[in-house]
Amino acid sequence: MSIQPSIPYSALGLRARPPAISALMSAALENPNLLSLAAGFTDTETLPATEFTAAATRLAARPGPPDWLQYGTTQGRVGLRQQLAERLRQTEPALPDQSPAERILVTNGSQQALYLAIQTLCDPGDVVLVDRPTYFVLLEMLAALGVVAEPLPQDDAGRLDLSTLEQQLARHQVQPRRLKAVYFVSYYSNPSGRCLAEADKCSLARLLAEKNLYVPVIEDAAYRELYFHEPYVARSSLTLEPWKKFPRLYAGTLTKPLASGAKVGWAYCTNDDWLARLVAAKGSHDFGTSNYAQALCEEVIRSGAFATHLDRIRASYYAKMRALHDAFLSEGLRALGWDWSEPGGGLYLWLRAPDKLDTGADGAFCRTCLQEGVLYVPGELCFAGIAPRNFIRVSYGVLAPAQLREAARRFVAVAKRFA
Amino acid sequence: MSIQPSIPYSALGLRARPPAISALMSAALENPNLLSLAAGFTDTETLPATEFTAAATRLAARPGPPDWLQYGTTQGRVGLRQQLAERLRQTEPALPDQSPAERILVTNGSQQALYLAIQTLCDPGDVVLVDRPTYFVLLEMLAALGVVAEPLPQDDAGRLDLSTLEQQLARHQVQPRRLKAVYFVSYYSNPSGRCLAEADKCSLARLLAEKNLYVPVIEDAAYRELYFHEPYVARSSLTLEPWKKFPRLYAGTLTKPLASGAKVGWAYCTNDDWLARLVAAKGSHDFGTSNYAQALCEEVIRSGAFATHLDRIRASYYAKMRALHDAFLSEGLRALGWDWSEPGGGLYLWLRAPDKLDTGADGAFCRTCLQEGVLYVPGELCFAGIAPRNFIRVSYGVLAPAQLREAARRFVAVAKRFA
Repeated sequence: MSIQPSIPYSALGLRARPPAISALMSAALENPNLLSLAAGFTDTETLPATEFTAAATRLAARPGPPDWLQYGTTQGRVGLRQQLAERLRQTEPALPDQSPAERILVTNGSQQALYLAIQTLCDPGDVVLVDRPTYFVLLEMLAALGVVAEPLPQDDAGRLDLSTLEQQLARHQVQPRRLKAVYFVSYYSNPSGRCLAEADKCSLARLLAEKNLYVPVIEDAAYRELYFHEPYVARSSLTLEPWKKFPRLYAGTLTKPLASGAKVGWAYCTNDDWLARLVAAKGSHDFGTSNYAQALCEEVIRSGAFATHLDRIRASYYAKMRALHDAFLSEGLRALGWDWSEPGGGLYLWLRAPDKLDTGADGAFCRTCLQEGVLYVPGELCFAGIAPRNFIRVSYGVLAPAQLREAARRFVAVAKRFA
Repeated sequence: MSIQPSIPYSALGLRARPPAISALMSAALENPNLLSLAAGFTDTETLPATEFTAAATRLAARPGPPDWLQYGTTQGRVGLRQQLAERLRQTEPALPDQSPAERILVTNGSQQALYLAIQTLCDPGDVVLVDRPTYFVLLEMLAALGVVAEPLPQDDAGRLDLSTLEQQLARHQVQPRRLKAVYFVSYYSNPSGRCLAEADKCSLARLLAEKNLYVPVIEDAAYRELYFHEPYVARSSLTLEPWKKFPRLYAGTLTKPLASGAKVGWAYCTNDDWLARLVAAKGSHDFGTSNYAQALCEEVIRSGAFATHLDRIRASYYAKMRALHDAFLSEGLRALGWDWSEPGGGLYLWLRAPDKLDTGADGAFCRTCLQEGVLYVPGELCFAGIAPRNFIRVSYGVLAPAQLREAARRFVAVAKRFA
């Protein structure tokens, strides 16, 4: 090809780069027998193929022209928003809202809701408080937008250190314009599998209020419905009293609990003005999520097939979590000084390696794992600020139980060599 | 609800506002008998409902797990990109590329491709040259991103005034960093219905090259496949020699020619580095368009149903264009001093009212049309810079021929009152 002139990129264009994990994924492709515990994908076998196909057939059988294959509105399909609102009210019975569907925005996965939230709030150089560890794709998005992620002071169990937090917020009080939002994954977190305790959620709100920092709150509840046995007890910021005066965006999704390939997420916004701006910003992006994907999700939920599906995958993910967790135990990983908690839902185990072991993407441990045919997400990617190098995220979402056990065997064999 | 604290919006958040057309659309809702010529929607009756449902059934019948309901990649489904690349090669046989699928990015409609292009190129205050008139949603997106749209010097027939253009580009040569891109809708334009002549396309490239302004070019070919009888003869910037040294993004879509509700668009990028940044930027937005919507489109194209569908809707849109066009004529609109050209494809007629008639959204003419039950897009929305107030865009996409004739009757009745 001809010599290409240099392109006059924007600041955002100059910052744009592939996700850190993609180099690792490319290296992984060289080993065809690799078992990947890295991707946060859902289980392909249990995806509701029959249910979606039945929904497609029912839509097509409706009398009248196929409006579901026409453009929709930017905010999203009314019928789907009503279904989502009804589910939200069941989860949060104290929701102080007569028409919650009007406050819901349908998005291309919850990722787009997070993006729109940050985009409408943050200029480059602004600060967002994030949980520790946090969703690494959010961290990459913040970096792409030039926004500074600052970790909340949380210990390895996820508990907030309130006196450190108070000092941290006091610093922001002096420069209040720079702190623009607080973000946390509050149920079965990606990556930690942890839930944020109601007491901690409330303490955070009280300390922010005390410093008069009523910044918008983005609560990411993507995994809330993926509990194994019982929903986690904590209410969300939507109904907890200490959050009442804060603008809140509560992001949910149908990708994880229903069908990742539909790529339908949603968010509920407590503030009318912010919601209008989120919708307007989405108008510029794409003026609405695929109406067909929305119509299919609406139909699957209305038919009751979503509820049945959830029961099925809760049991399936629990069995897969057990397979991986128990294989790590029986292979002797804990005896090597590794530690982790058993999650109550979600798709992830969050392993803490011995302090001196470097599990980073460019280290010998990670390289050896790749050689032995097992891939994970280096935990360092999940930390804002100073990142410890001895954590890893593994997902039991994709692989079958037997593969999970084999992956654990390979992993622990490497851990033994590095013990 | 409690008093909501003010939100610390970003510059983008502060600029975010509903599209100008939405006030008009809301007013229109008050008249239930209204016939809207405003929306650029496709014809609902002819949407390929049977074809999509058949594709869904075939996907479900495939052996193996339903990977089509799983996440895909950020760049888009390989099989779909191969189908799109094959179609592109048929349209542009001289495409100098052995693996065009690798240069295609699948997006949420072509709108997202345009957004990513502008986002990776332009900071607030930067300039984009646009055709005159141009796609009004693009103008709103540029405004939302703080980017300045500057019109190309085109006459009412779309021809470039080369000496004015030369002076205009000479000014940019002095401040080359501000001019970041050139954008045009080159086939059956929204809103004008016009095609950009090959000679003009080449003149534009030569003048830019002469001034050493090798800025990226965004060619919007959303309507290229929606010709009535024969494809328009002009090649695109992808294969025209004078454009060879420019970074080019050629945006296509499946929304208009196939199914608007699928919301699948695409773009072909000649520059590897820019493509990588577009993909990375999309990664932050949503890490990939709905894989299910993509798989369905892929299946519909592969089965040959897309080609059959195109033949059907070309005939249907031609008949609808004729119905509206001929009704304007037979009702006597031209005799009132109105003028327009018959398009060779697309979804729009672009009417020029007598010079002194103000057809703007807040004028008496528009208000009277609403009262009489007919809605259009005021042409002023489609101009960068100084906007003439005597153009309107009407679409024959949505309404049936009998409705189009009635809409034309109502419209011309109002035109007579204002003659």
